[in-house]
Amino acid sequence: MSSLSFATTPDPPYYAVIFASQRTDADPFGYYEASERMLELAAQQPGYLGVESARSADGFGITVSYWDSEEAIAAWKRNAEHAEVRKRGRLEWYEHFELRVAKVERAYAGPRADR
Amino acid sequence: MSSLSFATTPDPPYYAVIFASQRTDADPFGYYEASERMLELAAQQPGYLGVESARSADGFGITVSYWDSEEAIAAWKRNAEHAEVRKRGRLEWYEHFELRVAKVERAYAGPRADR
Repeated sequence: MSSLSFATTPDPPYYAVIFASQRTDADPFGYYEASERMLELAAQQPGYLGVESARSADGFGITVSYWDSEEAIAAWKRNAEHAEVRKRGRLEWYEHFELRVAKVERAYAGPRADR
Repeated sequence: MSSLSFATTPDPPYYAVIFASQRTDADPFGYYEASERMLELAAQQPGYLGVESARSADGFGITVSYWDSEEAIAAWKRNAEHAEVRKRGRLEWYEHFELRVAKVERAYAGPRADR
């Protein structure tokens, strides 16, 4: 996911799904392929605003996806291909994860003086 | 920050500060020292709940800190040592960053069947 960087999001409010995960050592290629596919598929969903993702060398990662509404998040969760891949994730790829859904209330960018 | 992993947070609602950043190549040791110190200092603040952080090999990273209120976030921002370090961050360590403040509304953990 080396092509990923900052998400360009509109002015708040909007929603963030914060997904923190610890990878197992299993199936790195299958995981990579599925990750790429999920990024592609997510980007096609109504209400998708963007994604940011980083993973440290020890396998701990954070992916934040941004959405314009709770409804958009719920619809993405119901997507059949996504549901299938989540199942593989729970069985094979993730030792543990924490998922948090949050409403973004304010945002700013830098470097520059604090606003 | 290899000792970092999942934050143990209470039931929502609480707040998340999502800090996505692209590092410059500058001053890796100074950056590392300041990061460690900020983690230590943040953990001493009233209302601090935890932190999660990951940085990819290309220097793109996401740090999410969790707080029990907007007031706790504002107080941490006013902390003098933290303000000084943010200034160094803008001048030296970060090519770009995006900071978002969000209210966590629901959360769950896995692997396990979807709730």
